[in-house]
Amino acid sequence: MTLPDIEIVEVAPRDGLQNEKALVSTADKAELVNRALAAGLRRLEVTSFVNPKRVPQMADAEALMATLSRPQGAGFIGLALNQRGFERARDAGCNEVNFVVVASETFNQRNQGVPIADTLASWASIREQASAAGLRTSVTIGASFGCPFEGEMPANKVLRIAEAVLEHAPDELAFADTIGCGVPTQVKALLRGARALAPDLRLRCHFHDTRATGIANVAAAVENGVQAIDASIGGIGGCPFAPAATGNVATEDVVYMLERMGLHTGVDLDAVIEAARWIAGPLGKPVPSALSRAGGFPPPA
Amino acid sequence: MTLPDIEIVEVAPRDGLQNEKALVSTADKAELVNRALAAGLRRLEVTSFVNPKRVPQMADAEALMATLSRPQGAGFIGLALNQRGFERARDAGCNEVNFVVVASETFNQRNQGVPIADTLASWASIREQASAAGLRTSVTIGASFGCPFEGEMPANKVLRIAEAVLEHAPDELAFADTIGCGVPTQVKALLRGARALAPDLRLRCHFHDTRATGIANVAAAVENGVQAIDASIGGIGGCPFAPAATGNVATEDVVYMLERMGLHTGVDLDAVIEAARWIAGPLGKPVPSALSRAGGFPPPA
Repeated sequence: MTLPDIEIVEVAPRDGLQNEKALVSTADKAELVNRALAAGLRRLEVTSFVNPKRVPQMADAEALMATLSRPQGAGFIGLALNQRGFERARDAGCNEVNFVVVASETFNQRNQGVPIADTLASWASIREQASAAGLRTSVTIGASFGCPFEGEMPANKVLRIAEAVLEHAPDELAFADTIGCGVPTQVKALLRGARALAPDLRLRCHFHDTRATGIANVAAAVENGVQAIDASIGGIGGCPFAPAATGNVATEDVVYMLERMGLHTGVDLDAVIEAARWIAGPLGKPVPSALSRAGGFPPPA
Repeated sequence: MTLPDIEIVEVAPRDGLQNEKALVSTADKAELVNRALAAGLRRLEVTSFVNPKRVPQMADAEALMATLSRPQGAGFIGLALNQRGFERARDAGCNEVNFVVVASETFNQRNQGVPIADTLASWASIREQASAAGLRTSVTIGASFGCPFEGEMPANKVLRIAEAVLEHAPDELAFADTIGCGVPTQVKALLRGARALAPDLRLRCHFHDTRATGIANVAAAVENGVQAIDASIGGIGGCPFAPAATGNVATEDVVYMLERMGLHTGVDLDAVIEAARWIAGPLGKPVPSALSRAGGFPPPA
């Protein structure tokens, strides 16, 4: 098996579903994961271990993990915001934990309930425990491109958080455009800045397409040395009140562009498109991705 | 008035409306043009002078031109596919003619009814007449990124057409991704190739967002020295059978990204968003642009 030039991390089961109004059954979530695996996606954010009262869609995290079997070499990522989440992810059998710190103080306090300093302290401790448990780790810096509460998010400020995270280096660091406001020049500044901080660090980006810049940001990330891109089958994850508007970048749209640019992803475009059309059923509405409507190019002969 | 870093050519009145099912009144078309002008857009593809039986939406080309007044310094472009179209555009008072040749033989024959060689011969003659009449000219090479009939469209093939066009050099040359299949590496190859052919030529690109790469292609075009970008208020121009899927890149989405990248467009984002929301009325459906739903960032205080 050839290693991909760019690794696509499938986040539909977590970030995708989390923002959808329709509650999806554990069986359908498992089918989504299995379809992703069958399409060649080897690393998946399977679920998050957060307060079920705040995120009801993720209440079945342990139940879902229990129904899945992880193929050799595949990565099942559990998202955690704190110590409790880490323990749940570890105990449920995730082999990677994705920890989140938000670049803006206000948003971090709203999202994690504690100041950034406390979140960073949790990270230091979790990093050590993950090591001991043999888990891979990644840290996502949320709102790296702009904050709904504080507005502009200068790259230097985000890179200071990155520096603090790297005191207890994860296996991978990610910049997330949580609200979908970022542009390619910001992608370049953050990736180059992070590369300067840690030349050998794996970098990942997470984009939402709220303001139509998601795929342009993927292209910029790839041009500036990113190793991995988060994407969501169907581009799901849109706010229920703005249909087709604010999901993650769609896996099939990302794969289409990268492959046409000559970059190998290891992902079967047609299988992803089929999975995207399928998930529209459990969600009860069409998915917003472009490729699930237009199909690839050139069309099959 | 500062010259823009990137000139946005507003094409909603032509390419946008042309693909919309709802017939829009001449008065509403005039309002669209006037709203675009008020938003700071200084160059507009106002209409096309083609066979009204083939494109009923453009049947009022002369009537529309007669109701408009062109502000000092503004460009009113008429699209023409042949000698007859050129004459109509000139006589209707357009101060620029955009002529089209398609990069694929099959598509050119279907679109213009003649082989590429004949279209190029028409161009040579029209170029001379336009000069005599004091009209600015541009040539758009359609299907530069892929053809619905012939499939792949190698950059070298497109650049050979460009070379033939440049024997009678227009004021500007454009590459159009007519079916929305192109990716940033193709944009780079075409723009660099054209630049090598004619170092001082103005270059323009025309993208559709059918496969989610439109805005990424705009970013690539800007990085590779394009001077002008076609865009359509609201991103209208989608095929009536694939709602919100295949329009031109939206003016407001392009302006948002470019301005956030530090590039001056001279266009008022809020006024364009307002125009996009307004045109949804005459079209009888929401427009597909992201910014018309999400609004800019940071939000107004």
